[in-house]
Amino acid sequence: MDLTQTRRSAEYQARLEAFINERVEPVADVADPDRAIVEGLKAAARADGLWNLNVRDADYGPGLSALEYAPLAEVLGTSRLAQEATNTDAPSSINGDALIRYGSAAQKARWLEPQLAGQIRSAFAMTEPDVASSDASNMAMTARHTGGEWVLDGSKWWISGVLHPQCAYLMTVANTVGAEGAGSSRHRKHTVFLVPRNAPGLEVVRNLPKFGYTDDAGHCELRFTDVRVGDDAILGDVGDGFAIGQARLGPARVQHCMRTIGVAERALTLMCRRAESRETFGTPVASRANVMDWIAESRIDIDACRLATLRVAALMDTEGDKAAAPHMSIIKVQVMRMATTVVDRAIQVHGAAGVSDDTPLARMYADLRALRIADGPDEVHLMAIARRELRRQSLG
Amino acid sequence: MDLTQTRRSAEYQARLEAFINERVEPVADVADPDRAIVEGLKAAARADGLWNLNVRDADYGPGLSALEYAPLAEVLGTSRLAQEATNTDAPSSINGDALIRYGSAAQKARWLEPQLAGQIRSAFAMTEPDVASSDASNMAMTARHTGGEWVLDGSKWWISGVLHPQCAYLMTVANTVGAEGAGSSRHRKHTVFLVPRNAPGLEVVRNLPKFGYTDDAGHCELRFTDVRVGDDAILGDVGDGFAIGQARLGPARVQHCMRTIGVAERALTLMCRRAESRETFGTPVASRANVMDWIAESRIDIDACRLATLRVAALMDTEGDKAAAPHMSIIKVQVMRMATTVVDRAIQVHGAAGVSDDTPLARMYADLRALRIADGPDEVHLMAIARRELRRQSLG
Amino acid sequence: MDLTQTRRSAEYQARLEAFINERVEPVADVADPDRAIVEGLKAAARADGLWNLNVRDADYGPGLSALEYAPLAEVLGTSRLAQEATNTDAPSSINGDALIRYGSAAQKARWLEPQLAGQIRSAFAMTEPDVASSDASNMAMTARHTGGEWVLDGSKWWISGVLHPQCAYLMTVANTVGAEGAGSSRHRKHTVFLVPRNAPGLEVVRNLPKFGYTDDAGHCELRFTDVRVGDDAILGDVGDGFAIGQARLGPARVQHCMRTIGVAERALTLMCRRAESRETFGTPVASRANVMDWIAESRIDIDACRLATLRVAALMDTEGDKAAAPHMSIIKVQVMRMATTVVDRAIQVHGAAGVSDDTPLARMYADLRALRIADGPDEVHLMAIARRELRRQSLG
Amino acid sequence: MDLTQTRRSAEYQARLEAFINERVEPVADVADPDRAIVEGLKAAARADGLWNLNVRDADYGPGLSALEYAPLAEVLGTSRLAQEATNTDAPSSINGDALIRYGSAAQKARWLEPQLAGQIRSAFAMTEPDVASSDASNMAMTARHTGGEWVLDGSKWWISGVLHPQCAYLMTVANTVGAEGAGSSRHRKHTVFLVPRNAPGLEVVRNLPKFGYTDDAGHCELRFTDVRVGDDAILGDVGDGFAIGQARLGPARVQHCMRTIGVAERALTLMCRRAESRETFGTPVASRANVMDWIAESRIDIDACRLATLRVAALMDTEGDKAAAPHMSIIKVQVMRMATTVVDRAIQVHGAAGVSDDTPLARMYADLRALRIADGPDEVHLMAIARRELRRQSLG
Repeated sequence: MDLTQTRRSAEYQARLEAFINERVEPVADVADPDRAIVEGLKAAARADGLWNLNVRDADYGPGLSALEYAPLAEVLGTSRLAQEATNTDAPSSINGDALIRYGSAAQKARWLEPQLAGQIRSAFAMTEPDVASSDASNMAMTARHTGGEWVLDGSKWWISGVLHPQCAYLMTVANTVGAEGAGSSRHRKHTVFLVPRNAPGLEVVRNLPKFGYTDDAGHCELRFTDVRVGDDAILGDVGDGFAIGQARLGPARVQHCMRTIGVAERALTLMCRRAESRETFGTPVASRANVMDWIAESRIDIDACRLATLRVAALMDTEGDKAAAPHMSIIKVQVMRMATTVVDRAIQVHGAAGVSDDTPLARMYADLRALRIADGPDEVHLMAIARRELRRQSLG
Repeated sequence: MDLTQTRRSAEYQARLEAFINERVEPVADVADPDRAIVEGLKAAARADGLWNLNVRDADYGPGLSALEYAPLAEVLGTSRLAQEATNTDAPSSINGDALIRYGSAAQKARWLEPQLAGQIRSAFAMTEPDVASSDASNMAMTARHTGGEWVLDGSKWWISGVLHPQCAYLMTVANTVGAEGAGSSRHRKHTVFLVPRNAPGLEVVRNLPKFGYTDDAGHCELRFTDVRVGDDAILGDVGDGFAIGQARLGPARVQHCMRTIGVAERALTLMCRRAESRETFGTPVASRANVMDWIAESRIDIDACRLATLRVAALMDTEGDKAAAPHMSIIKVQVMRMATTVVDRAIQVHGAAGVSDDTPLARMYADLRALRIADGPDEVHLMAIARRELRRQSLG
Repeated sequence: MDLTQTRRSAEYQARLEAFINERVEPVADVADPDRAIVEGLKAAARADGLWNLNVRDADYGPGLSALEYAPLAEVLGTSRLAQEATNTDAPSSINGDALIRYGSAAQKARWLEPQLAGQIRSAFAMTEPDVASSDASNMAMTARHTGGEWVLDGSKWWISGVLHPQCAYLMTVANTVGAEGAGSSRHRKHTVFLVPRNAPGLEVVRNLPKFGYTDDAGHCELRFTDVRVGDDAILGDVGDGFAIGQARLGPARVQHCMRTIGVAERALTLMCRRAESRETFGTPVASRANVMDWIAESRIDIDACRLATLRVAALMDTEGDKAAAPHMSIIKVQVMRMATTVVDRAIQVHGAAGVSDDTPLARMYADLRALRIADGPDEVHLMAIARRELRRQSLG
Repeated sequence: MDLTQTRRSAEYQARLEAFINERVEPVADVADPDRAIVEGLKAAARADGLWNLNVRDADYGPGLSALEYAPLAEVLGTSRLAQEATNTDAPSSINGDALIRYGSAAQKARWLEPQLAGQIRSAFAMTEPDVASSDASNMAMTARHTGGEWVLDGSKWWISGVLHPQCAYLMTVANTVGAEGAGSSRHRKHTVFLVPRNAPGLEVVRNLPKFGYTDDAGHCELRFTDVRVGDDAILGDVGDGFAIGQARLGPARVQHCMRTIGVAERALTLMCRRAESRETFGTPVASRANVMDWIAESRIDIDACRLATLRVAALMDTEGDKAAAPHMSIIKVQVMRMATTVVDRAIQVHGAAGVSDDTPLARMYADLRALRIADGPDEVHLMAIARRELRRQSLG
């Protein structure tokens, strides 16, 4: 397993760091950058070729492998603005992958091309309030086929990006059980529909906070009431929903992990700087053995997570996403636990400043704590890892 | 050490629970109860004798011992509204204790009596942005004696309650080093001033959030610019600041611990209910052995913290606050750690609902995480506990 | 709940400490005290009234309550020799309780009286190699009633004390399912037999080590082959086995907990002394903040466990053993976890000396680690605690 | 960083596994294999080319890189007999490396050649009872130069392998401060001497146990009284002791880590098998969510440790041992903590069998717990990691 960074990846990384330092950071100081600033950054990034970096398919993007993209995602991890500027932010980025793989020519023309061009964005509507997200095979939202149309009814929540002014469509998973083509098995019940954001009957109920933080682009609860789309809105085929969802979730998780390692590195940097600069009882906090232990343990755990994530990326590149899936569960647990722990230590070293908005730490914590639950909580992934291990051992 | 609840305490507890269920809860559903509602509750509580329950001095309140008050504080723990309704909420409640002990007759008439009557409230201004709160002997705010007046200059932060409409004064700790009466030792440098909330030069810079949450009553950063008060504003004597601060902090911490146990109990209740009602993969979450472990470990740890807190209360009653101080450090660490852990488990069991505002858990977590830092972070208390243990063992 | 130590208990404690310091400690230095020495200590302890301190029934012993005995057990915790000298060591001590409660007059004359007189000792044979000890309702050993005799066949293991030269009988639990009187329910299948140690067919297969340590008195695997006893060997009635086992286990666990707190205190003392006396890189280990954290956390956890154990003892005294049972599960988990952690920290502070026999720590660890498994592993008790909590909350 | 196993390494691994299964395992069942059996295995391994696999220098061994050797060391990890059979066991193996690098022609002829031929073995005598092993720059043992001889006096302990019948020499570190050539700096005070095992004045005081376990080959306390050697016994030069010690310790730690990963894998296998085969309350232990969590967390942590160890091996190969040193500290902490945790979980799943000698787990635990202390306890390595991180961050 060769984890060496390619020359190409290293060059991208250097240019990306320069772009962030020179172009993004100065603007990030502005509390709420307006659309014109963001679009200016996007144009600059695109002109520099720092665009759609996550798109592995060379027909649609730079064609970097997952392993090549990993260090770039890590650099992007702490800057939502840089992610948007480079058109690499979830969930649009991952929706693009699904369109590349499963989209019809018409769907690509309507949704994929403007999205890759940075003109529109999208959301992914799977999670539901009354169904454990840990069990992705049992959506309550229904899609009935009547009069040549599909009628969607039900609720979704934690749907990110819906409130972004450029959000144009929602990749929506619904239960088509009973419909022609859909099987009765739990893995063939669901279908993915590309639902325009402005479809009648699609209502944003509320924007959910994480701890006390609300994102402008939203993590929304949605209500679908008689939302109607045609057959051409179906991504892939009727019944493909579970498969598309799984195919989409894997790389999404891995990219979350890559970015999260960047977040943890940032927290460790803040922790070290604070520990050096703060004195209590006449000595710098950095000289206390318990704080030194936290710093060292953070370094150990970040490095371990980066290696594990690079391994998964290399497996995706060489064996394919499906073969890499069990290892995705491993880093989903490992990276999110590590990062919440590292950020929590950084908070403690910062004292009261750490829980306020004087540092980015409290917000990092809120986001990371939610990520330990989103896309399947730890316990679901641990169960999958254990089952696989038990099977492997009983065969061995 | 007799930890038995007295008959009187049990009677108060029953009445308090009834009051909260019948009077407070219905109103708490209202998003933002207006002042008239709060004042109505206060009148009702006062009429019922559920008033100033924390005031140990029988000349000023019901004269319940710390041990008698502990179960009442636990009941009050989860309801800020109930705390205000019963006039028991920090920091006013603890400021009252300090006034009772150190206040002059005039100070009592001006500040204590209306406060005990529920007409005014107060804040405690000690913590500063540039001085580690873990080291309470080195305030940067100065109070210079010139022209028969004291002139206060400096910054404070995390000053709770300042934005409450009834906040009338701030018990403010400032460095009077050099002033007549103040010693040069680190424990005689500080003096406490009773500063009217509307004193010219006293400015609220901002209201600090905790993990995105902002309290209406505020946790504020304040700027004192040439704030002038007379000699009659001094609580106790010049140089008494550190002693008053320590005397005040001890019971404040203990009451925080008592209330926090109630918060943890509430989180455990929510955890159990969710685990019973939520199914994943066809079985209730409550039947999974890892969730059962969390429930059991929460029970073990809550019980342990309650016993430890009752022990401290009993020591305060029988040996005095000062003798109980080392044990206060123990529960400061033990209870806050326990409660953040229990609430975090409850969040995990609730999934995404746990980090949103659909449950009180995320806000509980934010408050508790801040409490692990406020009044001295864990590490300072652990150091004190260790030093005492090492001394004890080397004598033993 | 009054946890105050009685004057009587305090007096016993002072005398016991003096006895241990003056009589036991000097002899304990001798590697393997011979029987004459032990008998001398026993005679002295008995003469001093430091004898059968654990026997709550005033007809058979000093009649100290559980709460009164707790601090004595803690003092005895670190000295096996002192336990034997005072005739308080498990399992004989607990077997005595069962005989007092369930024994016939003849059984008391034959086994109880000489045991209380320190002339004989006994073992308790319940645990079996092929049955999870966590599930005490399904013994594999059979007792068939044929020809007026009971014939016992099967294996037991981890039977402590069998190799002690004074071991005279084994309180043995066997499956009498099908026998007249025994029910078919899982709680009426078992019967307790008092089997003479020298019964033909009773064979010690091996003495099991804990880590690398083997006790002289043995933790033995036993083979019963056609071991025959009469009806007079039955303790209580046919079918009472499960009930007697549970009644016996509860106080046994509590006394283990009491003693274990003494072990943890001893480990903390050693940790502090080592930390004070050892220097690395020119500073005493005791000045390092991580080691200070360990010391403080050990103090916090030991105090918490002591309070919890005293609470259980008080409940046993006031409500009875059965009512206290759920709380026994709590301390079984809490105390053993605490003690292994404290001892492990002490080992780390001692460096290589800690894992050798230059300190008692490694052996303490081995014993404690085994205790986290014996009498039901943590997981069984956690499950019981969680079930009770869930039931309580759903009723609440 | 390319972590791919080479074809050559994979071939060695396959043959090594076959050798262990076919030749070593059958003999390992014999409690205490006699010398003839061991020598037979050694002859077979050598004939097969499974010999001196750890020797990186192609002039003296197969010349496998550290990365190539890592999976072989992991396979060898659980079998001391296989390590001896392949002449790869510490400390002889690492002493060989030091002789290759620093030895004179005469020293190589006398000690290295017979050792590589499997005729003699050796020990490494650095650690001292009264000097913290965490501080390797301050030996108490002295070597005085008098009358053309060096006279060694002092004590060593935890010297492994001294009691092996083939132990021929001890690579001994002593304080030559004041001697010509030795500097006064803490890093030039020490010198390494090759002391014949049978040198007059060299006495084995005792064989130190680890948690009750004593190794036949010994972890001994030694007393050197006027032990005399000539100038030709000096490895490298006077004053090179610290440098040789550090150069030697690095790869020794890495090989310990490699082997330890094999030990952890073995423990995980045992845990899974036991969990599958054991039932409690009618369901297999493997179906309980807490046990599944332990299995999954063990898999996550073992994989993380293997990746980190391979990274260090790759760095040793590409950048040299010295450049890899900071990363050695990382795995020293990470791997030993992981392995003790995994083994402890396996013990818990095995119940009482886990602490006895019915499984290898208790002995594994004892060895691993000692390894968390040997070669510098966690805290020393954490301090080094933290210092490096703080330096890096303040430069960055």
